[in-house]
Amino acid sequence: MWKIGLAGAAALLSAAIAVASAEEADFTMEGELMRPDGWREWIFVGAPLTPNALNDGEAAFPEFHNVYIDPESWGHWKQTGTFREGTMLAKELVLVGATEEVSGKGYFQGEFRGLEVALKSRERFPDEPGNWACFSFRQKPEPYTMVATASPTESCNACHEAAAADDFVFTQHYPVLRAAKPR
Amino acid sequence: MWKIGLAGAAALLSAAIAVASAEEADFTMEGELMRPDGWREWIFVGAPLTPNALNDGEAAFPEFHNVYIDPESWGHWKQTGTFREGTMLAKELVLVGATEEVSGKGYFQGEFRGLEVALKSRERFPDEPGNWACFSFRQKPEPYTMVATASPTESCNACHEAAAADDFVFTQHYPVLRAAKPR
Repeated sequence: MWKIGLAGAAALLSAAIAVASAEEADFTMEGELMRPDGWREWIFVGAPLTPNALNDGEAAFPEFHNVYIDPESWGHWKQTGTFREGTMLAKELVLVGATEEVSGKGYFQGEFRGLEVALKSRERFPDEPGNWACFSFRQKPEPYTMVATASPTESCNACHEAAAADDFVFTQHYPVLRAAKPR
Repeated sequence: MWKIGLAGAAALLSAAIAVASAEEADFTMEGELMRPDGWREWIFVGAPLTPNALNDGEAAFPEFHNVYIDPESWGHWKQTGTFREGTMLAKELVLVGATEEVSGKGYFQGEFRGLEVALKSRERFPDEPGNWACFSFRQKPEPYTMVATASPTESCNACHEAAAADDFVFTQHYPVLRAAKPR
């Protein structure tokens, strides 16, 4: 009886430890961000879409953006309404697939196209706006690259500067974050 | 030392038990489905959109549909590529909010509008197609209703019959499910 109880507890403990380490950003010796594991099991926060059809056939971002926050930072957000040191936001790019179904005309998610991660770290990025740096693992088809270097500040902040008052994140378009923010 | 270890193990065990029970559908004595807890922390699988703008201003489903699968059934899907007895798929309806941003013209998620759940249960719904029944907790604004009765078969299956070969789920529009299906 005791043996089973302890074995079960040990398994739970090791599972908890595995989850915790998966939620911290890892870097190579060369300073490249390693692709995080399991972002599709993180907390989904919203899915903006700016399709080619509405942007003269040349949208800057023609894909769905499936946006997630890592679980540890989600817990922090629910308690504080702020992004903790170490927050990772993953943005998976998904091509528009079908445009008509029995439910109507519209946009349905097709194939994965790429993965980008924004990481907030005062320690690593003291000079970036809000201490955020963004990384692109973009590649088609899958699998995405395993590592990525930080994109130039201006390539991220040309847009995200508009959200400076909200720690550079467009939370107004992420209803899951808005609803969970403490009042 | 032992006391701490056992207390920690007990906390982990009770957390695991709490999660497990949250992943099973609960019914009232009257046979109504109780609204599940924490569906926004389930696994997101895709977000179809059939906006009014593309459907003569009168879309049958004008909202984003944020679709999730419960964690226990997600684990089963990854192993088998099938929906287990007891699978819950949650579909949260989200109004289109902004339609233009610095990233371009498009569709951005606004306010939550409702919650629907599809539950697969041979035990409870032996005569439903695929043993799926669907429930609407729809209400605006939040909070959604706490319980819901099963919708008439035809109100769900008028559309989902088209996905009969895929257990009545439109997995072709859910890239997260497609990518995780064992080959």
